[in-house]
Amino acid sequence: MRQTALAVDLGGTNLRVAVVSADGDLRARRHEATRAKAGPDIVVAQLAALVDEVCRAAEVPADAPLGIAIPGPLDPSAEVVSFTPNLAGWRDFPVGAALRQQIHRPIALGNDGNCAALGEATFGVARGVGDLVYLALGTGVGGGIISNGRLLEGAHGLGAEVGHVVVAMDGPRCTCGSLGCLEAFVSGWAIERDATIVATTADGARLRELAGDGPVKPGHVAQAALEGVPSAIALLERAGRALGAALGAFVNLFAPEAIVIGGGIERLGEPLLGPARRAIANHSFPAPRAAARLEISALGGDTALYGAAALALERAR
Amino acid sequence: MRQTALAVDLGGTNLRVAVVSADGDLRARRHEATRAKAGPDIVVAQLAALVDEVCRAAEVPADAPLGIAIPGPLDPSAEVVSFTPNLAGWRDFPVGAALRQQIHRPIALGNDGNCAALGEATFGVARGVGDLVYLALGTGVGGGIISNGRLLEGAHGLGAEVGHVVVAMDGPRCTCGSLGCLEAFVSGWAIERDATIVATTADGARLRELAGDGPVKPGHVAQAALEGVPSAIALLERAGRALGAALGAFVNLFAPEAIVIGGGIERLGEPLLGPARRAIANHSFPAPRAAARLEISALGGDTALYGAAALALERAR
Repeated sequence: MRQTALAVDLGGTNLRVAVVSADGDLRARRHEATRAKAGPDIVVAQLAALVDEVCRAAEVPADAPLGIAIPGPLDPSAEVVSFTPNLAGWRDFPVGAALRQQIHRPIALGNDGNCAALGEATFGVARGVGDLVYLALGTGVGGGIISNGRLLEGAHGLGAEVGHVVVAMDGPRCTCGSLGCLEAFVSGWAIERDATIVATTADGARLRELAGDGPVKPGHVAQAALEGVPSAIALLERAGRALGAALGAFVNLFAPEAIVIGGGIERLGEPLLGPARRAIANHSFPAPRAAARLEISALGGDTALYGAAALALERAR
Repeated sequence: MRQTALAVDLGGTNLRVAVVSADGDLRARRHEATRAKAGPDIVVAQLAALVDEVCRAAEVPADAPLGIAIPGPLDPSAEVVSFTPNLAGWRDFPVGAALRQQIHRPIALGNDGNCAALGEATFGVARGVGDLVYLALGTGVGGGIISNGRLLEGAHGLGAEVGHVVVAMDGPRCTCGSLGCLEAFVSGWAIERDATIVATTADGARLRELAGDGPVKPGHVAQAALEGVPSAIALLERAGRALGAALGAFVNLFAPEAIVIGGGIERLGEPLLGPARRAIANHSFPAPRAAARLEISALGGDTALYGAAALALERAR
């Protein structure tokens, strides 16, 4: 196995590059604001320049592979991004070909959620696990699936959309257009939607107080719940039950050894995770449930960066 | 690739054996009632005897592999059945070891739903498809998943329980104990449960008439729906919407090239399948949905038998 990889986390906000060793040492970290509105050619040039800068700073071997986590559905064999909501002009963009013209080393590209799953299985709390579901609970809900030691990507890399599985067929509409997705219950935007409504009611006095002049954020809801405010407890309990229902479905479908949760929303803590844990038991078989441990990511904001490195070490060409 | 396999479909009611060629020719078919209450040793002996009978009748090569579809979760490496509701005494039963003592040829064992998925991808309407979801809508709901050309079985073969994924987190209780599973909406028992309730109401006159002195069966509901009876139409529409919600989740998770439906309930036809097709659009992304064709199984009751043959040809040892 290769010993060192270059890792790129290409986000809609930040572009991040680092050197990661096969034993998980992350160094020479650089980041800058992604020139997201400038179109794909400019972003690819920006990425190549930042990779060059890291290579000069860290004396990376010339044949060290490069892994890149991309924020959108990516066809893993064609290396084409079908679209990505946060980067202007990335529609059916042949990102692999564009990068290979500028960067002359083995390259591997992956969707960011899939990369993160691989990062958890290679460097994170699920190190060595062959059957894994990773859930990134952030503003939206993404993630990835590893089945029998391999990324589950689906035809043309369009699968593993773990945030967009039904938990309530007559539930609220999701930003993706579907009804009752997991993301429509337990993402940052969904919790804010519910909290904004509660804050207009008599039960929302404490939420209004915590939010001050700004919008009600998920952290305000968690704070109120920890203080015992019933409306905040109920709001996070419903979100947690939806999370547990989806996790139960994943237990029955993938029989994972581990489910890893990251992305930020998991930091709301027990008011969300307690109901989720209890709900898993209402939506899964005992045998696979007993075998699936629930873990909180310890890689923090570096999950996709570690994953890009894992991808490079495994399949760069 | 091997040219001929022996295939066994071990059901709770019937034990079926046949010879299947690699090009899909099924011959020398035998079946008898499974001695389901007699315990695993008797059933294994019964199976071995029926295989012997088929071998004598069909002049099967001595090294032709044997594939067996088992009605319960099966650990594919340990070849142990954890339990099966329809065969008495099959709890943590080492079926592989027991069979290998009596049958001296390469053997492969698989869960019946997984085998059926493999049968559809090898001999059925999804021949050659590498990403496939197969759904057996019968008294219960089973099935299997093929991802990137391989069966998705999960750790210890406990995954791919496609009938037991949530479609409504506050929905009716399923026979498995969970809440709001697909099976709790669209199986034979779930449709009978709903139909029995409707039949007690003023809207249920036609259902009572069709059922006569017996229970209201799914076929009666379909007949009434085709005649335009609103309560029957509404009943199957709700079941169809639940089916479509689960299929939408499968589209987003597995990005399959084909979804194949068999098992019997699909014969209720358009009153069920029309709403299901429309609901898929409410619960999936356009790109993977456009790529996933919905097919009705053409292998009928032989799906698991064909699948056992495919399993034997692929992985018997």
